[in-house]
Amino acid sequence: MAITNKIITISREYGSGGRGIGKRVAKQLNIKCYDEEIISEVARCSGLSAQYIREHSEDKHGGIFNVNHGFGANSLTDDIWLVQREIIIDIAKRESCVIVGRCADYILQSCENMISVFIHAPLEDRIRRISEEYKVPDKDPKKLLLEKDKRRRAYYKNYTDLQWGDASNYTMCLNSCTLGMDRCVQLIVDAYNLI
Amino acid sequence: MAITNKIITISREYGSGGRGIGKRVAKQLNIKCYDEEIISEVARCSGLSAQYIREHSEDKHGGIFNVNHGFGANSLTDDIWLVQREIIIDIAKRESCVIVGRCADYILQSCENMISVFIHAPLEDRIRRISEEYKVPDKDPKKLLLEKDKRRRAYYKNYTDLQWGDASNYTMCLNSCTLGMDRCVQLIVDAYNLI
Repeated sequence: MAITNKIITISREYGSGGRGIGKRVAKQLNIKCYDEEIISEVARCSGLSAQYIREHSEDKHGGIFNVNHGFGANSLTDDIWLVQREIIIDIAKRESCVIVGRCADYILQSCENMISVFIHAPLEDRIRRISEEYKVPDKDPKKLLLEKDKRRRAYYKNYTDLQWGDASNYTMCLNSCTLGMDRCVQLIVDAYNLI
Repeated sequence: MAITNKIITISREYGSGGRGIGKRVAKQLNIKCYDEEIISEVARCSGLSAQYIREHSEDKHGGIFNVNHGFGANSLTDDIWLVQREIIIDIAKRESCVIVGRCADYILQSCENMISVFIHAPLEDRIRRISEEYKVPDKDPKKLLLEKDKRRRAYYKNYTDLQWGDASNYTMCLNSCTLGMDRCVQLIVDAYNLI
């Protein structure tokens, strides 16, 4: 079945404010934003705990997943990916919405009315945001940030064979520092209304 | 002197329609679009012919420049780069405008009110555009297109040490195929009006 709902996917560098932008876009458009809800749904379908799923997702800091050696050795991580993929497709079939992270841009690439967005910002701006806004209690926010980026990049590469943050993979890439959060929200809303 | 004019730079994959988008954005905003004019200006300042400058720019198809071995061996190419750089800075100091190509995004990165845009599109769409719209008389448009991309990528890498088309280098990256030309123009105009 072709997916004709209007879908916005948000990929984001850690600390770029991408998740917040996704939520605000959804609120403004009066559609749902799927983020943590996907983890709950994977937990429900797979019987695994939400905590375990988080530990095998794109965002876990540290954990048993070794970025350098790929996901291949851990078939459960692949199983989680497959369940997650089905859930994302089901959501997109059901309703117009915003989906944050989880390679949704790749999974839904054949959707007719999909806008895939990548939100990024310079390192210094992201360090400031995770310290001041996210209140991440970390002694070395720069290190944490680079590790998160590395993990997301490896996760994306592993499951899509594409380069995370390469402009050609996305409909729009926006620098949330130069443009500011309000402008990013507005530009994505404008793009949504144009498709 | 800090540059406070509002500048839009357009980098673009060959065949993505980026140049046309830049011209339309400028027209809509009632500002100038600098593209070929920069070559004429470099010619005037350097005493070199416009043709020679084109042959040593980002866009020459074939020519004496060897992509694989960098620009280092040809000091005249570097001289052209330096003259071109000064001209781009002078234009930005003088007026709000659109500047197409020529690493202007990198040269003007410290401008307070600069939006750097990267326009891209899938290969098939670009092949169609260069054949149908640009009317490029080439037996193998795909080969021509990949060579042009390769040259622009090498030129950008050589003079900026950055990756051409990496989202983090630009304020906005837009897929002109998914969004369409009209929407790209509108989104850039919107972003300009927001800064």
